[in-house]
Amino acid sequence: MADTDVKELTTDDAPVKARGLEGVIALESKLSSIDGQKGELIYRGYDINDLAEGACYEEVVYLLANGELPTQEELDDLRQQLRNERVLPTPIMDILRNVPDDAHPMAVLQTTVSALGQYDAEANDMNEAANRRKAVRILAQIPTLIASFDRLRKGKEPISPLDHGSMAYNFLYMLNGEEPGEAAERIFDVCLVLHADHGLNASTFTGRVIGSTLSDMYSAIPGSIGALKGPLHGGANREVMRMLLEIDEQGADPAEYVKQKLAEGERVMGFGHRVYKTMDPRAAILRDMVKELSEKEGEMKWYEYSMAILETMREDKGIDPNVDFFSASTYYQLGLDPDLFTPIFALSRTAGWTAHLLEQWADNRLIRPRAEYVGPKDRTFVPLSER
Amino acid sequence: MADTDVKELTTDDAPVKARGLEGVIALESKLSSIDGQKGELIYRGYDINDLAEGACYEEVVYLLANGELPTQEELDDLRQQLRNERVLPTPIMDILRNVPDDAHPMAVLQTTVSALGQYDAEANDMNEAANRRKAVRILAQIPTLIASFDRLRKGKEPISPLDHGSMAYNFLYMLNGEEPGEAAERIFDVCLVLHADHGLNASTFTGRVIGSTLSDMYSAIPGSIGALKGPLHGGANREVMRMLLEIDEQGADPAEYVKQKLAEGERVMGFGHRVYKTMDPRAAILRDMVKELSEKEGEMKWYEYSMAILETMREDKGIDPNVDFFSASTYYQLGLDPDLFTPIFALSRTAGWTAHLLEQWADNRLIRPRAEYVGPKDRTFVPLSER
Repeated sequence: MADTDVKELTTDDAPVKARGLEGVIALESKLSSIDGQKGELIYRGYDINDLAEGACYEEVVYLLANGELPTQEELDDLRQQLRNERVLPTPIMDILRNVPDDAHPMAVLQTTVSALGQYDAEANDMNEAANRRKAVRILAQIPTLIASFDRLRKGKEPISPLDHGSMAYNFLYMLNGEEPGEAAERIFDVCLVLHADHGLNASTFTGRVIGSTLSDMYSAIPGSIGALKGPLHGGANREVMRMLLEIDEQGADPAEYVKQKLAEGERVMGFGHRVYKTMDPRAAILRDMVKELSEKEGEMKWYEYSMAILETMREDKGIDPNVDFFSASTYYQLGLDPDLFTPIFALSRTAGWTAHLLEQWADNRLIRPRAEYVGPKDRTFVPLSER
Repeated sequence: MADTDVKELTTDDAPVKARGLEGVIALESKLSSIDGQKGELIYRGYDINDLAEGACYEEVVYLLANGELPTQEELDDLRQQLRNERVLPTPIMDILRNVPDDAHPMAVLQTTVSALGQYDAEANDMNEAANRRKAVRILAQIPTLIASFDRLRKGKEPISPLDHGSMAYNFLYMLNGEEPGEAAERIFDVCLVLHADHGLNASTFTGRVIGSTLSDMYSAIPGSIGALKGPLHGGANREVMRMLLEIDEQGADPAEYVKQKLAEGERVMGFGHRVYKTMDPRAAILRDMVKELSEKEGEMKWYEYSMAILETMREDKGIDPNVDFFSASTYYQLGLDPDLFTPIFALSRTAGWTAHLLEQWADNRLIRPRAEYVGPKDRTFVPLSER
């Protein structure tokens, strides 16, 4: 989309109606750019392929928040700040201990991130420096929240976070109780890089709408988490895995399985995207990673099911997979529970959510569209006794 | 705004850019309509003046959710459902007991509404009937959450909800420990009616964006609460009271106080509205109520300060007060703490939030605008060791 094609609405113009806000530009951003025709995603001017290959997640966190890739010193400093904030306040751990074992992990994440604000003395301080510190705290504590919840529901004690290692390394350690191998850490780290930001998706947009009222970061991020939970957004990766597991359990032919779903008018999760008209570049990176991981572990079936589904969807519907499609089998091959896939997406996207909030507040404007009223008009009120 | 003036965007059109989404219609709604030129607000076709005079809050809850005013039998049934759901699950009361006394009431409300979902077996059931039951539960429990939090932070035991009485009556009882007089109940009930819905404001819009991913009600409402907390939205009524109290403490002349604020380039809260170009009809209703309440109690100063500020703002800036301006002194005269004003706004608006979610899900479409990327392009990645 060339900038010259964009029509800017002035107060003199007639209102524009766009259901779902498709085709509407709500704000300007310097964070990430998606070229749906070319299948291109950039963060702060850097191509996602370069970042996935050459940068770790913490570098991307720094890049999104500051606009530049960090020097070694800046990166070390950020890493140390993140490590310093990994431990949860005791009352938050108490909430996690009391949550029912069958609670939805995204619901628990929403509740506890919201609760974290009550133990942060800077929660309502809207100074930029305070907001940057809060962004680091939230990002550092989300992995501990997810891992602690997962262990508690399995009847295990939470594992205290390490005071060393990357976010990817520490998270896998807190989840499994053993330090991860280099390959697992690297793959997981790349997944975090790939999911860190993606334009004005529904959860990021939610956060910016909340932030635009000058509400605080601990109030906005739970809104983003709530949006990401939805199956039309982050919840899709869990649904993709559910499908792959169902195919495996039934011993079904993946292509036939998908054809039948389509014939029944059902949605096949992990395909299509409002913005990409070609293959999502993140899906391509993940596809290659799943293949490599599968070959290494000598377990090709998830990759094979995925490729068979991909071919069928391309042939029958002409649509390509999105990031959720291959992240499902990647996480599964890493030994992660399917219902943690969306919380892990949240973990990664917190980098984008918090950076978008900083950007929103640097030049704030309330985000408030209108609804078109299509209901009855001029009704005469009838008192209760006469109804 | 006549419908004929609206331009509907098609996929062939160039993207439209509208910062803050001003002038953009994001969806169709049958819930409420605002005529900013005439200063008119209607719910489901009924004028807000008629509803404030003739209907109680529970009738409005029914109207917003169902599109029709209830018969006596339908109203009795809804009232009974609401009464049945007033008691909080024990683990929620435990969370409230552990919250720091100085926590922000809106933050606590967000955390606990999110947590309620973990104790509702229907939390993730997206069936319409289940969603309607959840709307009733959330609406019934929010007053108990607010009143219990307020008592606990004051070192008092929470008061169990009554199994009779209106929402207004029961809430004031749980807060103060004594049954309210008829006048207080009536005034408070009118306040609930006035704040129940208001088009696609930022908190309602937030809820619909979250809901549009097919996330659930317990995930969406906390997002709305987060948005309402902001001083550019629901947080304004608390700021208005802060100003009135400051004027009183300083013994300042209200008109001079406001002139000085304006001269210093500060914002005077409770004035102006993106939609109303004349006086907000809710402000007019509340103004008359504050006057009556003040005369009855023989304490005119808050009304007098307010009117002096109103005149000054009209003369100097040509802008009218909005609903927050007079709700502040109304709630204060009813003996409510200023930092509960926004939670009470949330209590009332939950009627609108939940009805908007039901409407969203009845004909869902993902709400996802775009951002215009204005950052750097085509940057060459430099590895960490070379930075």
